[in-house]
Amino acid sequence: MLTVNAYAAPSASEALVPTTIERRDVGAHDVLIEIKYAGICHSDIHTVRGDWGPQSYPLAPGHEIAGIVTEIGSDVTRHKVGDRVGVGCMVNSCRECENCRKGEEQYCLKGMTGTYGAVDRDGTITQGGYSTHVVVTEDFVVRIPEGIALDAAAPLLCAGITTYSPLRHWGAGPGKKVGVVGLGGLGHMAVKLAHAMGAEVTVLSQSLKKMEDGLRLGADQYFATSEPATFEKLARTFDLIINTVSAPIDISSYLQLLALDGALVNVGAPAEPLPVNAFALIGGRRSFAGSAIGGIRETQEMLEFCAEHGLGAEIEVIPAEKINDAYERVLASDVRYRFVIDASTLG
Amino acid sequence: MLTVNAYAAPSASEALVPTTIERRDVGAHDVLIEIKYAGICHSDIHTVRGDWGPQSYPLAPGHEIAGIVTEIGSDVTRHKVGDRVGVGCMVNSCRECENCRKGEEQYCLKGMTGTYGAVDRDGTITQGGYSTHVVVTEDFVVRIPEGIALDAAAPLLCAGITTYSPLRHWGAGPGKKVGVVGLGGLGHMAVKLAHAMGAEVTVLSQSLKKMEDGLRLGADQYFATSEPATFEKLARTFDLIINTVSAPIDISSYLQLLALDGALVNVGAPAEPLPVNAFALIGGRRSFAGSAIGGIRETQEMLEFCAEHGLGAEIEVIPAEKINDAYERVLASDVRYRFVIDASTLG
Repeated sequence: MLTVNAYAAPSASEALVPTTIERRDVGAHDVLIEIKYAGICHSDIHTVRGDWGPQSYPLAPGHEIAGIVTEIGSDVTRHKVGDRVGVGCMVNSCRECENCRKGEEQYCLKGMTGTYGAVDRDGTITQGGYSTHVVVTEDFVVRIPEGIALDAAAPLLCAGITTYSPLRHWGAGPGKKVGVVGLGGLGHMAVKLAHAMGAEVTVLSQSLKKMEDGLRLGADQYFATSEPATFEKLARTFDLIINTVSAPIDISSYLQLLALDGALVNVGAPAEPLPVNAFALIGGRRSFAGSAIGGIRETQEMLEFCAEHGLGAEIEVIPAEKINDAYERVLASDVRYRFVIDASTLG
Repeated sequence: MLTVNAYAAPSASEALVPTTIERRDVGAHDVLIEIKYAGICHSDIHTVRGDWGPQSYPLAPGHEIAGIVTEIGSDVTRHKVGDRVGVGCMVNSCRECENCRKGEEQYCLKGMTGTYGAVDRDGTITQGGYSTHVVVTEDFVVRIPEGIALDAAAPLLCAGITTYSPLRHWGAGPGKKVGVVGLGGLGHMAVKLAHAMGAEVTVLSQSLKKMEDGLRLGADQYFATSEPATFEKLARTFDLIINTVSAPIDISSYLQLLALDGALVNVGAPAEPLPVNAFALIGGRRSFAGSAIGGIRETQEMLEFCAEHGLGAEIEVIPAEKINDAYERVLASDVRYRFVIDASTLG
């Protein structure tokens, strides 16, 4: 057992504090990673505060992990000491079900093991990346190509793959019109990735406040959804809309922006059901769909794609002592576009 | 101008009565069809009663038309006198928009012209198939192959194509599991067609009342949705579910019956928005979609498919004087599975 420094929430109602957590001994198929950077995802906040159900405490969140391999188990073949690696939202799955066999471990029929707050295969509760080290089975560790700095790579492990996967699945590319709802952590990656794939990209944001950024990141157009004229002007335009906003939006209005056979894909999920007008679907053979992160193979593919196109997340690196402030700023949408914790400051 | 016998509603609140309506002179591109049979679709009832918005009266409904060509315009090339032909839910479209050019006239960006109750290209209001004759531009008239009796063919023009099109679009065939929600006019055709395409077919009906019929029509399994165990037993089963029920159902529960990448496709639409749980979509990259009839080319393809596989609708042929009784029976779901009016009884 390894005792390592971390930042964790003592309860749902308390701020995160410096503490130590336990990591299992490095097993035959495990790698020990010295964490260099960990991104702060909005879902970290929801989870530690109990918004998505009760948790076991203390809980160290973090599922956007970038670091260096410092030890490997006896049977490890995919990674070696010194490798630059990443860990995303899951650290294991059953590996036997139909979906796992397809490489879609995120849809494991027995439930994938979340990187933090989940019951691990050995019965312990997983602890996340706000920590100096983590032990993960090699198959759930991906290589970070040389072309991407580790700090800008960390958010790719959640925000990157969560937008890359649906863009690929629904065929974003040359000749396709892609809309991105919301320009936050996920939205800014969706813009960069869809642009790099060759699609025509339009940001649909509440206001035009971040317009300059959006165009710089690769958007061809930028519209304010607070402006009703936007919905008239863009009616029947998009082949694909990625909705990165997890607060409820008026799905039926956005469906009307889709061309024939278009899909509106939610990557976030509000707790409340979303009312959908079936006529909006039928009137253009449209789909309202959802997508969760991506499989391990696809996560590796996404990182190679980012390296090839020189893409990383837009980040603000913070020391551990700023984590609680950062949470408040994430909740106030005051971040462009991802906070990344410098793990060397974890003490 | 031709004056022809018909059954029409004098107003939204009155029963249909025998009357006469006008048909335009046969233009250069028109065909005159002597109607032999006209199916009764649930939407006829909604439309004439004003449930879907105000109408112009008197209104003769009917968009499942089968008959014989008795006259053709000077420039007609697709049909000749004596041909067995059909007309479905639309009699024209703009023919110039992107969707029309793709052969998806049902999604015409300027709006297709409905077979009844719509403003026609010449400004008159279209009148439907509860009539002895109809004049239609040749491009919106399809051939009924010899293998299908005209009475059993009539419902294929709406109930047939409305289910055939999404089955094809979402790839029903060998190795695919297809669920059909509701065993009515549309549902019974969905079962026959999906079975003929080689899919494994499951009927999801409120009760087991029509189970014997369902299995005879080609279903492999039949489940009662009033039984909560059905939703447990069939969780994550289907590649495609065709929902033929236009009353609101609990979409989120049905989404849970879909396997990875499965789609739930509504072919009917309740007026009220349907609440959709985004987690049900995200948890399996599922889609909630809609589909409207099919294009003219696909309608012809569907008729050839039916002839090849010996398929027609299950019908009860009625004389015109029974139309109002038939409406009450449709509303009470007391029909197996489509009423068809014998047009020779229209006087």
